[in-house]
Amino acid sequence: MRCDRSLAAFIRTRLAAVLMMAAAALSLTSVRASADDIQILTTPAGIEVWLKSESSIPIVSLEMAFRGGASLDPEDREGLANMITGLLDEGAGELESQAFQERLDELSLRMRFDIGRDALYGSMTSLTPNLDEAADLFRLALTEPRFDPEPVERIRGQIMIGLLQDEEDPHARAWSTFSSTAFPGHVYGRLVDGTPETVEAITKEDLAGFVGENFTRDRLVVSVVGDIDAERTMELIDHIFAGLPAEGAPIAVPDVEPVSGVVDVIAMDVPQSAIVFGLPGLMRDDPDFYAAYVLNKALGGGGLNTRLFEEVRKERGLAYSVSTYVYAYDQAGLWLGSAGTQNARAAETLEVIRAVLKEVSANGITQQELDDARDYLTGSFPLRLDSNQAIAGMLLSIQLQDLGVDYIEKRNSYIDAVTPDDIRRVAGRLLHVDDLLVVVAGQPVGITPTESVD
Amino acid sequence: MRCDRSLAAFIRTRLAAVLMMAAAALSLTSVRASADDIQILTTPAGIEVWLKSESSIPIVSLEMAFRGGASLDPEDREGLANMITGLLDEGAGELESQAFQERLDELSLRMRFDIGRDALYGSMTSLTPNLDEAADLFRLALTEPRFDPEPVERIRGQIMIGLLQDEEDPHARAWSTFSSTAFPGHVYGRLVDGTPETVEAITKEDLAGFVGENFTRDRLVVSVVGDIDAERTMELIDHIFAGLPAEGAPIAVPDVEPVSGVVDVIAMDVPQSAIVFGLPGLMRDDPDFYAAYVLNKALGGGGLNTRLFEEVRKERGLAYSVSTYVYAYDQAGLWLGSAGTQNARAAETLEVIRAVLKEVSANGITQQELDDARDYLTGSFPLRLDSNQAIAGMLLSIQLQDLGVDYIEKRNSYIDAVTPDDIRRVAGRLLHVDDLLVVVAGQPVGITPTESVD
Repeated sequence: MRCDRSLAAFIRTRLAAVLMMAAAALSLTSVRASADDIQILTTPAGIEVWLKSESSIPIVSLEMAFRGGASLDPEDREGLANMITGLLDEGAGELESQAFQERLDELSLRMRFDIGRDALYGSMTSLTPNLDEAADLFRLALTEPRFDPEPVERIRGQIMIGLLQDEEDPHARAWSTFSSTAFPGHVYGRLVDGTPETVEAITKEDLAGFVGENFTRDRLVVSVVGDIDAERTMELIDHIFAGLPAEGAPIAVPDVEPVSGVVDVIAMDVPQSAIVFGLPGLMRDDPDFYAAYVLNKALGGGGLNTRLFEEVRKERGLAYSVSTYVYAYDQAGLWLGSAGTQNARAAETLEVIRAVLKEVSANGITQQELDDARDYLTGSFPLRLDSNQAIAGMLLSIQLQDLGVDYIEKRNSYIDAVTPDDIRRVAGRLLHVDDLLVVVAGQPVGITPTESVD
Repeated sequence: MRCDRSLAAFIRTRLAAVLMMAAAALSLTSVRASADDIQILTTPAGIEVWLKSESSIPIVSLEMAFRGGASLDPEDREGLANMITGLLDEGAGELESQAFQERLDELSLRMRFDIGRDALYGSMTSLTPNLDEAADLFRLALTEPRFDPEPVERIRGQIMIGLLQDEEDPHARAWSTFSSTAFPGHVYGRLVDGTPETVEAITKEDLAGFVGENFTRDRLVVSVVGDIDAERTMELIDHIFAGLPAEGAPIAVPDVEPVSGVVDVIAMDVPQSAIVFGLPGLMRDDPDFYAAYVLNKALGGGGLNTRLFEEVRKERGLAYSVSTYVYAYDQAGLWLGSAGTQNARAAETLEVIRAVLKEVSANGITQQELDDARDYLTGSFPLRLDSNQAIAGMLLSIQLQDLGVDYIEKRNSYIDAVTPDDIRRVAGRLLHVDDLLVVVAGQPVGITPTESVD
């Protein structure tokens, strides 16, 4: 189980995997682990599943998600969906926690659950001969979780420890305050992990209620990769999921634009300041999304060869780290950055970041920076498809973001198509330095908070 | 880089990956990711390399090792080889540390180095189109590491922090004391990570001297898996390795049998005791090795379905963990176990462990336990071959341990061939309870150390 899915943790893991691949010097024009053999199946029970058969190793990977995720937490139960992901493999059906874990052991079954803002993720990797039993266990976990007192209190305790640790961590504090400041009154402003109060308040009824209401077939997205054919896949999927309720209530998360132009300081007695900065970004289906993605790479998106790293770290030795991220929630676009620096140099660091954004907003990036960013993003793409489980995860993301079954083949052409004009246009659209929302945790010298926006 | 390769860390990672796979309910009689397409090549420069071509994704994984590893550390420079693994990607040839890291970034090149008792490991995964440049960087790292002052002091600092943390960690303390107690006067008794004194003493000359003397072609073992053919593989291998010296001095690590029948206590002010226990084990080429491996699985080798877990944890709730490991060094065989328990119940935990060993030594295990252990070990084997890098690692291990090119295909038949008679024989051979070497860190109530064996 994973229970540390704060915004920070979420970005560090899922986004990091997606965006921060290292650079590639040569561009690959096609990816051979391609989409041409993806089958889109509809099971007898009416469930759609994407399948890539690959029989070289007797293993099957299944990746699934229920749309909604932490956004569906009731207001006074922040952290509920997160806590559920920690408990789904802690007893289900007739099997108490230890019996369930022993059964996982016996089957060599890898099962895990994960929470995001917009979806709750599940994953299993099974040996082919054990698929029937694996499907049974996975079905039990999703349809009949027990939420017995012992595992509930144990997992609650683990989450509490994580929350206490986050309290002491300037980066975690800056990230969570950034969320609440950027999205006041919106579910995206809440904490995925919850607060000590809300996590303490969660009852067995809350846990079971969330599962009953939100684990539904209309919310389900699923992909399968491995040693399995279409017929067997449809049986497997229906065995696991057909018993779920057909429909949940509509997901009523409204579109939202993050708050702009605020500087907030969280006083912490630490030698180094954690800086989080951001601006309104683009939604995933925006025509300029790929231009923003390439621009972000050149500015600060992973690796050491970025404008911000060059200016902030190499030229001036100001920060020990600086990175930026394109972040497309279902209902909001964000462009985010983070840096760590000595307290004494926090203001100067922020000043250099602002100057870089202003310069790029006005003049774009160089042709070399554009070429490097495109090469990096296209060249490193195959490294994200290097196991069946990774491919299943990619197929899941493609469905969740509605990118089309040919996305794996076409994705690099979208990146390659980004022109200097596109970059200039999107830089002008996005990089409004005066709108920067900044949260600093530490004792940053020379940074004055703006008025509170409560 | 990894610099926390203490015995404990080594066991937790490498061994855990090898031995602690979860159980499989059904036995797989053959593994399709098999050895039938492994090519054994000899390059023009005379270097042998094992290749499995697999072109579905444009990635190539190379795994290599120089035999010797931490065993070659000079006596007053414990931790030297470990420190080197942290520095090989921190500047080489004309490239200073940051330039080297930037080049890795630009190439999307994953490179890492790792230390073991008997070998120093290297690994790279490159995109196919970048292979030439990747090979250049890997060659530089192995043949011209710079060991500049800045990275040397930075990595030394990181290692020191790890050593200080280990000082406070009862499990780390118990493991390291177990090693020094089991192998007094032998290199296996030293610390892979070194001590604050020895790490402090390491100079640039020590680092460069070790590389010059021990990174030699006669010590080299290498495997390649991925999108590459035989001809290109041989070019690649010679480009990287042909410039190395042909021969190092003979590796003069003598065979050794671990010390028996000692109980040692390390007083630490912690609420829970860490227990490490062990007995002389079998060398990798012992005819009874597979029987010992199956016996170990049934006794305590991973998962919750083991005799020790059953008796210690489930029946009596004594320990929060108990596991055992088969450990075959090049020059010594060990059977190891570890447990964690409240101080007050340490003696009782150890008593139950002794009783289980005594019982199994006399009567072996049940047919059901034997069947379950064999099924687990054979069934979970494919999960260890689920990516090209994993297969390359397996091919490397097979060479290092001289198991034969058909090992992947035959391995499960070796496990399946283990009979109840084999188990009884090997249990009688190994499980001499009175010989148990025990190290406990904590404040274990009721455990009396035997006389010191200095």
